[in-house]
Amino acid sequence: MTKDQIIVKMVMDRWNASIENCNKLLNAVNDEQLQREVAPGKNRGIYLLGHLIAVHDSMLVLLNMGEKKYPELSKAFLEEADKVVTEIPSAKDLRSKWNEQKEDMKQKFERLTSDNWFERHTSVSEEDFAKEPHRNKLNILLTRTTHLQYHIGQLVYLK
Amino acid sequence: MTKDQIIVKMVMDRWNASIENCNKLLNAVNDEQLQREVAPGKNRGIYLLGHLIAVHDSMLVLLNMGEKKYPELSKAFLEEADKVVTEIPSAKDLRSKWNEQKEDMKQKFERLTSDNWFERHTSVSEEDFAKEPHRNKLNILLTRTTHLQYHIGQLVYLK
Repeated sequence: MTKDQIIVKMVMDRWNASIENCNKLLNAVNDEQLQREVAPGKNRGIYLLGHLIAVHDSMLVLLNMGEKKYPELSKAFLEEADKVVTEIPSAKDLRSKWNEQKEDMKQKFERLTSDNWFERHTSVSEEDFAKEPHRNKLNILLTRTTHLQYHIGQLVYLK
Repeated sequence: MTKDQIIVKMVMDRWNASIENCNKLLNAVNDEQLQREVAPGKNRGIYLLGHLIAVHDSMLVLLNMGEKKYPELSKAFLEEADKVVTEIPSAKDLRSKWNEQKEDMKQKFERLTSDNWFERHTSVSEEDFAKEPHRNKLNILLTRTTHLQYHIGQLVYLK
């Protein structure tokens, strides 16, 4: 195993474990719990779920894996704070998108070689990437893993 | 820049940014706020601060950088849940330890080469490490970064 294969495994393991933790947590709360604020005056569980799906949907674009699958979620869950957009998808709908996305990303990620992960992501130019080679696809996976962990720390309060 | 240098920079950047986020957050709340539960019935801010210092203290041992500096924190903040141990250090004391530890770790981490980060950590045997080379020092830094982010997501509710 070369060092780049080792590190891709390390980051991928962290991503997969975080997704699995979040998934377990979602399965442990019912739709009514998901509608509650995770703490008084803070985001609702359903907002955090929509937010995670929207952020992970944007990852696909950054990783050059196609267009967003759920562009309709951006307004309510990325651009605006919780409760600003009053009409949002149901818990059932978001759970179904979460599961679909989880499987889709898993398959797409498994197809990438470790060399692919060290390629530039789509929001950095070739010129900048030559000077800043850490702005690669693996860094997208890494930063979204820490982002996910941050919100898992909050979602856990729904239980 | 070789791939292993790139990835060490990536993980180190995540660690440093997370420590700085947490530090800003701690500076934005006063001692009285730190004594509060982050959400009703959940951990107090001061417990999470003590917990982070204790976990980061254990990192030094795993990274083969010496003994724990604050072994007296293990009982209250690692082994036991919040409020089990009634006599805990003051917010002032923990803040001072946090700052001291932050500087100490920074200096120690800067001394490591990227090759050092790919060495085995102290809780894996040479035999196992030969088979599982991802159980290296960089993985300790990575997993503690995601752990830190999880608790930052909670500490932010003190504000």
